[in-house]
Amino acid sequence: MDEFELIRRYFARMGADRADVDLGVGDDAALLRVPEGTDLVAAVDTLVEGRHFPAGADARSIGHRALAVNLSDIAAMGAAPAWATLALTLPEADPGWLDGFARGLGELACAHGVALVGGDTTAGPLTISVQILGHVPRGSALRRGGGRAGDVLAVTGTLGDAGAGLALATGALELKDPAAARDLLERFEYPTPRVEFGIAARGIASAAMDISDGLVGDLPKLAAAGGLGAAVDVERLPMSGALRAAGDAQQARSWALGAGDDYELLVAVPPERFGELAARAEQLNLTLTAIGELNRGNAVKWMLHGAEFTPAVHGFDHFRRASTQITV
Amino acid sequence: MDEFELIRRYFARMGADRADVDLGVGDDAALLRVPEGTDLVAAVDTLVEGRHFPAGADARSIGHRALAVNLSDIAAMGAAPAWATLALTLPEADPGWLDGFARGLGELACAHGVALVGGDTTAGPLTISVQILGHVPRGSALRRGGGRAGDVLAVTGTLGDAGAGLALATGALELKDPAAARDLLERFEYPTPRVEFGIAARGIASAAMDISDGLVGDLPKLAAAGGLGAAVDVERLPMSGALRAAGDAQQARSWALGAGDDYELLVAVPPERFGELAARAEQLNLTLTAIGELNRGNAVKWMLHGAEFTPAVHGFDHFRRASTQITV
Repeated sequence: MDEFELIRRYFARMGADRADVDLGVGDDAALLRVPEGTDLVAAVDTLVEGRHFPAGADARSIGHRALAVNLSDIAAMGAAPAWATLALTLPEADPGWLDGFARGLGELACAHGVALVGGDTTAGPLTISVQILGHVPRGSALRRGGGRAGDVLAVTGTLGDAGAGLALATGALELKDPAAARDLLERFEYPTPRVEFGIAARGIASAAMDISDGLVGDLPKLAAAGGLGAAVDVERLPMSGALRAAGDAQQARSWALGAGDDYELLVAVPPERFGELAARAEQLNLTLTAIGELNRGNAVKWMLHGAEFTPAVHGFDHFRRASTQITV
Repeated sequence: MDEFELIRRYFARMGADRADVDLGVGDDAALLRVPEGTDLVAAVDTLVEGRHFPAGADARSIGHRALAVNLSDIAAMGAAPAWATLALTLPEADPGWLDGFARGLGELACAHGVALVGGDTTAGPLTISVQILGHVPRGSALRRGGGRAGDVLAVTGTLGDAGAGLALATGALELKDPAAARDLLERFEYPTPRVEFGIAARGIASAAMDISDGLVGDLPKLAAAGGLGAAVDVERLPMSGALRAAGDAQQARSWALGAGDDYELLVAVPPERFGELAARAEQLNLTLTAIGELNRGNAVKWMLHGAEFTPAVHGFDHFRRASTQITV
């Protein structure tokens, strides 16, 4: 099977059909119709084997993750996803692997109405880049820097599950409870981008970003983008029962603070509108938990039961850290 | 230097400033304004070290090439390039390498008015994906499948130079003439995307594609996209003096037919409008050479001095060919 046949077979019909795709995979470029009155939203994220997922991970999970991390960026802007391109570098054209990968990516694409409109397949070490395109009514995108002093900081869902899931996947953690292990592993392997919540937060949240590198790495970026400081009550971080069962309090907290890969959203919201936003989250079967607030300072204070606390974790940094996203 | 500092330093201000970028590098995604009445054009291309360029190639050349191959896709649609995102996987954060890479990519971006609006830098084997976005007045894009029987097939510039340049770069070829060697190497290392010609060909050419995988690999795709056959007179392929000096006639022909990387455009144009298109090319200091025509057949006939000819080359296929794009 040659490269072109391979691309045709697996990717030509992947994802959703959309009426706004004039020309998809198969020409030099795709032709797309962006709705009038919207801003185009564009992001790119790359996954490298052994870095963003364990070597030998399930191909379907890799395909899901490659799109999910990009959908999460779109969610963080309050935008609607529409189209994606895929740059796939892989060591060999293994039909079984490609089937699984295409299923993982394709199912998530269909679930969010995303059409795959272009791709490039090359031979080399396993590396996957997805570029996602979406749109948002002009002027209504959520930005990192829109927060104000006094705004509540809140996160969707629960934090730390994916960190524990990665530890399970790599054998660094073993759990006796099979249901908890399955839940945590699922959270790592099949992260859920909070696209509907991002759209629901338009016009209410003042700032948003996704937590892809861990709260300790990401929250300071949101504060700094607004020229603000922040205070976080670490005991308020939402943690699942499965996470609490997976380690002692310190270990669970460490995952919730520092492990990336949860792909929950961090938002800033004026205190008088927090209830409204939490109600919208609830309609989406999602919790929204206040964890602190933005202030006029220039640093982030992490507080644990009223005392200042220095997290023994830092954000995910590809060039400083060896092979795992977890430091405890 | 951590990942974020690295991205900020080298890529935050790379490329052109554009008034239609509401938000560039630094948030979860970019916000861009697509002109009304246009189609968005999107493409992606990946370069892998040792596959698309020799290991140890000059970083500035790699940066140039990464954008040039994408600009060439935009050119093949007759579109105007506007924005790009960069997914860069590299083994280490070497400031010298990054400087060169950023210069090569940045200079070409500025020359074409392209803003770099997003990036993701990860650690791993050297792999570069650029996603390019542009726009074209609605309905005026050049497609592969628009040709008709009787249309002239023509190519811009000269073919085969980059193939010989790659042979020089890898030591497979040595030349006594330093000026010819420099010209050929330059053609491989710094390909020139034919963006202005693509725009000039709107409304005249009936079909277009770029020659990135070699004429023997690419021309049949253009014919097949239109449900047509083609006949090509191989002796009409435009070859530079430097290429003719680099090998015997058979070798030069082999490069012109089969080596990729020239990034010239292949167009189909109704015969009565060929002169008009050639005149537009001339205004851009570019030659346009008729090499054959589309017909009602279902295959491509390669003719050499009136006799059918079987090229001993095939298109670039990452999974079938080992380490070089040249087969002679």
